[in-house]
Amino acid sequence: MSTFTHIDAEGRVRMVDVSGKWPTLRTATAGGRVTMTPETFEAIRDHRVRKGNVLETARIAGIMAAKRTAELIPMCHPLNLTHAQVDFFPEPETFSIRIEAVARIIDVTGIEMEVLTAVSVAALTIYDMCKAYDKSMTITDIRLLAKSGGKSGDFVRQREKKGETP
Amino acid sequence: MSTFTHIDAEGRVRMVDVSGKWPTLRTATAGGRVTMTPETFEAIRDHRVRKGNVLETARIAGIMAAKRTAELIPMCHPLNLTHAQVDFFPEPETFSIRIEAVARIIDVTGIEMEVLTAVSVAALTIYDMCKAYDKSMTITDIRLLAKSGGKSGDFVRQREKKGETP
Amino acid sequence: MSTFTHIDAEGRVRMVDVSGKWPTLRTATAGGRVTMTPETFEAIRDHRVRKGNVLETARIAGIMAAKRTAELIPMCHPLNLTHAQVDFFPEPETFSIRIEAVARIIDVTGIEMEVLTAVSVAALTIYDMCKAYDKSMTITDIRLLAKSGGKSGDFVRQREKKGETP
Amino acid sequence: MSTFTHIDAEGRVRMVDVSGKWPTLRTATAGGRVTMTPETFEAIRDHRVRKGNVLETARIAGIMAAKRTAELIPMCHPLNLTHAQVDFFPEPETFSIRIEAVARIIDVTGIEMEVLTAVSVAALTIYDMCKAYDKSMTITDIRLLAKSGGKSGDFVRQREKKGETP
Amino acid sequence: MSTFTHIDAEGRVRMVDVSGKWPTLRTATAGGRVTMTPETFEAIRDHRVRKGNVLETARIAGIMAAKRTAELIPMCHPLNLTHAQVDFFPEPETFSIRIEAVARIIDVTGIEMEVLTAVSVAALTIYDMCKAYDKSMTITDIRLLAKSGGKSGDFVRQREKKGETP
Amino acid sequence: MSTFTHIDAEGRVRMVDVSGKWPTLRTATAGGRVTMTPETFEAIRDHRVRKGNVLETARIAGIMAAKRTAELIPMCHPLNLTHAQVDFFPEPETFSIRIEAVARIIDVTGIEMEVLTAVSVAALTIYDMCKAYDKSMTITDIRLLAKSGGKSGDFVRQREKKGETP
Repeated sequence: MSTFTHIDAEGRVRMVDVSGKWPTLRTATAGGRVTMTPETFEAIRDHRVRKGNVLETARIAGIMAAKRTAELIPMCHPLNLTHAQVDFFPEPETFSIRIEAVARIIDVTGIEMEVLTAVSVAALTIYDMCKAYDKSMTITDIRLLAKSGGKSGDFVRQREKKGETP
Repeated sequence: MSTFTHIDAEGRVRMVDVSGKWPTLRTATAGGRVTMTPETFEAIRDHRVRKGNVLETARIAGIMAAKRTAELIPMCHPLNLTHAQVDFFPEPETFSIRIEAVARIIDVTGIEMEVLTAVSVAALTIYDMCKAYDKSMTITDIRLLAKSGGKSGDFVRQREKKGETP
Repeated sequence: MSTFTHIDAEGRVRMVDVSGKWPTLRTATAGGRVTMTPETFEAIRDHRVRKGNVLETARIAGIMAAKRTAELIPMCHPLNLTHAQVDFFPEPETFSIRIEAVARIIDVTGIEMEVLTAVSVAALTIYDMCKAYDKSMTITDIRLLAKSGGKSGDFVRQREKKGETP
Repeated sequence: MSTFTHIDAEGRVRMVDVSGKWPTLRTATAGGRVTMTPETFEAIRDHRVRKGNVLETARIAGIMAAKRTAELIPMCHPLNLTHAQVDFFPEPETFSIRIEAVARIIDVTGIEMEVLTAVSVAALTIYDMCKAYDKSMTITDIRLLAKSGGKSGDFVRQREKKGETP
Repeated sequence: MSTFTHIDAEGRVRMVDVSGKWPTLRTATAGGRVTMTPETFEAIRDHRVRKGNVLETARIAGIMAAKRTAELIPMCHPLNLTHAQVDFFPEPETFSIRIEAVARIIDVTGIEMEVLTAVSVAALTIYDMCKAYDKSMTITDIRLLAKSGGKSGDFVRQREKKGETP
Repeated sequence: MSTFTHIDAEGRVRMVDVSGKWPTLRTATAGGRVTMTPETFEAIRDHRVRKGNVLETARIAGIMAAKRTAELIPMCHPLNLTHAQVDFFPEPETFSIRIEAVARIIDVTGIEMEVLTAVSVAALTIYDMCKAYDKSMTITDIRLLAKSGGKSGDFVRQREKKGETP
């Protein structure tokens, strides 16, 4: 029964101790994309979606979700974001909406999860608002684009496509 | 000032009225994928991630998030899921973890958003648990795989790759 | 010490038992008003508020808050709204925004608190979005306008001003 | 399609960047009022409301809501209140309960929304506890009474009625 | 790598499927106890605790927590309680406060976790309100006292001490 | 009516003002215990519980609950934990699982309630996962084991049993 007694020896989750770290200015940017049919893309563009203004609702949902990241992600440290913004870049050539979220804080831990959560919930909200039209929409390419601040140093993801940030 | 006075004539969001609909058994399945470096994939497989058991934590996070979908997605109807499950299918050939979520309910409205939210938060949790190793992980292919029940009828997404559900 | 022993004999709160009641279709409408300076009123009307689209954000906040009413109001029964909507009626003659919220459900208990909460949080959001311009905005006249369904019967508040609902 | 491409050029909400601001001691006071029938006023006063102690429940609800303000108000910055209190001043001459909330923090952003939310939810709770008696209760005069701290300087609302704070 | 591929074959959590079950009237009662020093017991009894009315605050906290049980307990089904109440029985001979919570619902799944959560959070709140006086308070004997309804049948815990429910 | 007018003179709750206190490193440890039948103890030990990995789920639930303590405990100050961990020590001789939670923060107020809440919710989750087997499980001995930091000084609870922390 030794493995049971030492059940905490391996595989146990914890919220990592960051109490000894020094607060620094931290920023993070995440991106994502929702692809859809041409008809759905045009309905969003022309504000013809019956449920209401798709992108404005998605923007608000993304920002609100960023504030609640630590409730959703089990080992994520709670923190008080001092800036959050979500932007949309409709791309007619691919019938997709590109999403970017940016956040900022002075704290001891990074905010990658906050921007990734903002992008994810903004994307889910676009799906929700349009699903009566198009059940096959797909959410892709949710990833960290850049971060700065903190001991692990800065990170900038390689640009994948022309025109993308960064 | 007429557009301002009739500000509710277009573009206003609402939680659609489903009070006249009849409850039916509804099921939904969503999928997604997290791609990563070979090293991260192996660390998850071998339970060597310092933060703890990655997939078990992601599973629980996904199920808990499914229950709170209506808090995150602004126009989503609140409902009481009667079943939710999240599964992982590691794919060594692509160094990715495929995620599937299934839910079930007898209610007047569908649960697509619940399974999509479960997949998204499970994927975000995998990212969080491994981000010290691999900041370039990417979440892709979040989409509805199947739904049944409700007036709009059943939906089964076309299979994209061999071995995927459905 | 008798009053202490019988501390539950009087003054103790409880969530009233409604388990024996029969579900009926219930609707409720609440109203409220935010008064402001002429300059603030015009800034909202002309979409010149730096924080963003005031009324669209307030609408979403009100609907989302309606869904979480039972978390805020201690003795309020949790329930799953099947419809919620928030509308704004700017009134140039009084430099105020009139707010109305409507909700609907088939359930054993009423939804007065849900529509009153929607109006309150929509009003608070208008305040938040404009407070950099106008700290003296006032929220008034939050009240139930009408309800139907349930054993206590229908209720329609007397019309106070011409043009108001009901 | 230019307006759609530049959809973020105007009217888009954001959580304003306060990461460069310096923490200062901030206080805020808000007021509000619930008016009711003489019978309801006396039932509250005499602790005869069947649901329980009305004002004690409303006080707790108001304080708890203040802590969750940033979940309710979309663009409100999350913060950790270091003091919150809600008081009631029954006014027999108008059959109304006057409400005041006070909060305090050392932070980079103000707490006006926290005290306004505390007053609003306390008022809504009074309504909820008494609505079986009096559906025509009205919530009025929710407004900021005073604030101090922060770059925008102190604010004291003009006294409207004798005996009111400030 | 076979165990990794079949990672869902054992040890994986799920929210059990209850969608095929029939709603029945369900009740549950849970109990618990907070033991303390004689001085703390008397301070609560005499309403001399500086933070406020201890038991009234604990009662409200317990009822509110019952409504949010499914947010706290990962595999707990969300449901809409139709009745919840928390009572306190101060026992001078043991310098302890006995707590009982009762809830009721017509649903497909039981509400044991809801009453156990109500008792736990009520007990934690008593601790919080008095911890400035007495850090050695202990919460004990949290257990299900009785349940009725559902396929698994009724349950009544054996009485342990004279005077206890059931 | 004087007592009613001065309703705030006694017995009113408040969130105590800590805005003048200085941040210090604070740690806290709490313990608890779930007792059960030999059969349930062995089912947990051998991972034969049908709902999934009991202790891993309880660990995650406890850590997540610690982050939300201020939402549950009415007068508890919100704060951002920088470390949280929950461990289990199965004790075969008593057929019980001993639980310990540790947390850490640099802040102006203590975190006793956070570790007590983590232990309580971890215990409730063990109950939930096993209640199909054993409705008579009991949660006991939830208490503060140690704290350090803050003006009130350090606290170490007397050891009750050999082998317990501290």
